[in-house]
Amino acid sequence: MPLGREGGLVSKKTLPGGSFQIIASSELSSMVYLPSIFSSLADTCSPGHTITFLVSWISDIIVVVSPENIETMKSIVEKYGHKRVTIVKGGITRHRSIFNGLKVFAENQSSNRLLQKPEVVIIHDAVRPFVEEDILLKVVMAAKEHGAAGAIRPLVSTVIASGEDGCLDHSLERARYRASEMPQAFLFDIIYQAYQQCTDHDLDYGTECLHLALKYCKTNAKLVEGTADLWKVTYKRDLYAAESIIKDSLSQQICIITDVKEAVVQAGFLLHESLKNQVKVEAISISLSKNDSHLQNIFSGECYNFLCINDKEYATEEIQQLVDMLEKSNVPLLYPVVLILVHLNISENISFSIGLEELTKIKKFAREVKKKNILVYGLLIQYKDHFPLQETVNSAAALTMALIKDRNPELIGQLLVA
Amino acid sequence: MPLGREGGLVSKKTLPGGSFQIIASSELSSMVYLPSIFSSLADTCSPGHTITFLVSWISDIIVVVSPENIETMKSIVEKYGHKRVTIVKGGITRHRSIFNGLKVFAENQSSNRLLQKPEVVIIHDAVRPFVEEDILLKVVMAAKEHGAAGAIRPLVSTVIASGEDGCLDHSLERARYRASEMPQAFLFDIIYQAYQQCTDHDLDYGTECLHLALKYCKTNAKLVEGTADLWKVTYKRDLYAAESIIKDSLSQQICIITDVKEAVVQAGFLLHESLKNQVKVEAISISLSKNDSHLQNIFSGECYNFLCINDKEYATEEIQQLVDMLEKSNVPLLYPVVLILVHLNISENISFSIGLEELTKIKKFAREVKKKNILVYGLLIQYKDHFPLQETVNSAAALTMALIKDRNPELIGQLLVA
Repeated sequence: MPLGREGGLVSKKTLPGGSFQIIASSELSSMVYLPSIFSSLADTCSPGHTITFLVSWISDIIVVVSPENIETMKSIVEKYGHKRVTIVKGGITRHRSIFNGLKVFAENQSSNRLLQKPEVVIIHDAVRPFVEEDILLKVVMAAKEHGAAGAIRPLVSTVIASGEDGCLDHSLERARYRASEMPQAFLFDIIYQAYQQCTDHDLDYGTECLHLALKYCKTNAKLVEGTADLWKVTYKRDLYAAESIIKDSLSQQICIITDVKEAVVQAGFLLHESLKNQVKVEAISISLSKNDSHLQNIFSGECYNFLCINDKEYATEEIQQLVDMLEKSNVPLLYPVVLILVHLNISENISFSIGLEELTKIKKFAREVKKKNILVYGLLIQYKDHFPLQETVNSAAALTMALIKDRNPELIGQLLVA
Repeated sequence: MPLGREGGLVSKKTLPGGSFQIIASSELSSMVYLPSIFSSLADTCSPGHTITFLVSWISDIIVVVSPENIETMKSIVEKYGHKRVTIVKGGITRHRSIFNGLKVFAENQSSNRLLQKPEVVIIHDAVRPFVEEDILLKVVMAAKEHGAAGAIRPLVSTVIASGEDGCLDHSLERARYRASEMPQAFLFDIIYQAYQQCTDHDLDYGTECLHLALKYCKTNAKLVEGTADLWKVTYKRDLYAAESIIKDSLSQQICIITDVKEAVVQAGFLLHESLKNQVKVEAISISLSKNDSHLQNIFSGECYNFLCINDKEYATEEIQQLVDMLEKSNVPLLYPVVLILVHLNISENISFSIGLEELTKIKKFAREVKKKNILVYGLLIQYKDHFPLQETVNSAAALTMALIKDRNPELIGQLLVA
């Protein structure tokens, strides 16, 4: 599954290091952001993770981007309707990029309007897409008190110094050291003065902002324990991990929609019972043809998975209406939404069969709807003696979980049999 | 997908730290192994990764296991037929466990027979499951020359020292330091003497073997650049990454099996053409009812994906025979094998339909075969004018790739339509 629709996972490799960054500011702080996989992750992580753009106390977000990616970034900002964003051209190293971002608050530049100087500025890498509001707040509050602050994590491996012969010189006592991570926050005046005093050597070879604040402004940054999720997406395996984390967070909740017919409501109830041990389930019985306000509420929530049960054909007018409502809700804008069309077969006919025409129709419908970032799958539940067997319900629940966890775009339009 | 069939991913959390380890030895070296997720990863990683058990120049493998997991480990060793393995009871810390492993070569103990003392011993963590033979060889050769050697990696984050007030004391210049990883190798006499001189404080709080060799034997270990794959599976995200890496390596090759009928061979050829840009494809046309030696060769190779094309019903005698051959080949022992049954519908009947009875039959068959660790899926290819459309073939190839990449056990027995 591509994460989001920008294909940003690929762009990581094509971007020069350190040329893609973020800064932000507010009553509380501003932010400088370094988003090498910005398009797919940093702006569209699970609802709790879009914070750099959603946190209300951040007044300005400066996104520092390599020159060749400025247009892409502009279109992303526009597409997702991000506010308070200023895009700034990056430099050839990390420190030069951050410095460019900071200048927006201090120097009149031809390309960008001067923004109001913030008290505190946050600096963050977009290669750490799972940053939480809580840690942002912690570093900001600590920066207000100490002048500078940064997130840290315990070391996973022992750190060693090697001699010139390529042999061990000494190893560091692991407990005494920490890995310095992002986000970091600074009183704007401190970090800006530090950058103004930087030598070319600092700007070309340095990587650590906390070090600059210490070296040039004698400010010992407060160190704030961060969560494991702050890790830096560095290797291919980290992209795998990020993708799994996002998929995991998207498959925590499911909404079961049934119309008001008895058999359908009953099937919804049984599925609810079977699913609720694994995910949060919201079940509603409505007449789908009406524009239900309860459904609107769910669309405005954080649910990315819908199970729509009916006893009619697939791809009916009601389903089309549901798709339209989903599209209007903007839910599928950030992530692919899964819509499972559950068909109840209540005919007792043992030789029941599925026509190829019918299958082709679902596939065609699913291909159309995929353009709206909605993944449609079919699921058939067979009734026996006016009641589905428990085994069948459990199988339907297992298939549902598999579909929403994988979110596999290749399997859309397939009809699975519970 | 569980990795392997031992559910070892879960056991990681239940094991006390450092109590599950591996050591090995040979003409070249021995090995001490520390496998906290041993059951699922270390012994069953992709064919190239089972090396600790397959490398011929390792004469003995000592697996250090926490007391409560000794029986589990014994059954794993037996199940996979691992040779040269001695299981040793771990201690309460990492160093105590390693010391226990080393004693097998030096002290007569009631529980284990004394093994011949090796010249070189390798020490490795099983939480680094993707170790390659190449790096093992490098550390062993370096240890023969320098007395000790260990794999290193560049630091991903800057390392900092914090003061007593929780503020930054100083940051290390990242380029001068390295992360110390595993495997490490030592002249046996050096590392054993180092452990004999260890204080209780070393044994209880130390973590770095290279440090012990330096401290007690004045041996500066040679540092050997390792690959990114040596990383330590530490957090939940690392398990996600490990799973994806394994799935990736399993989906590199596919074998297409057809019988000798013209339409079937033709479909196999078209699928081959469509798939070969994405994976290595091996295509063979045989009479499945015969015990083909070419097929036997493929089974003894590293292929975990089979596409079996026919124009008859599913779950026929021939398919059953194929499953039996796969089972005998031991291929499904380490990883789940994917078997896609491709059914050609060459009838021109537009109202062709699939009976529920037929679908139920495939599902039942798939559930049976899953017990042998073979995942069976159905795939229908529709012909038109005696020829499948290119679009249909491409769709079949895309579905095939999706199935072998996901290896989703919940979707077995489903019939997908190309």
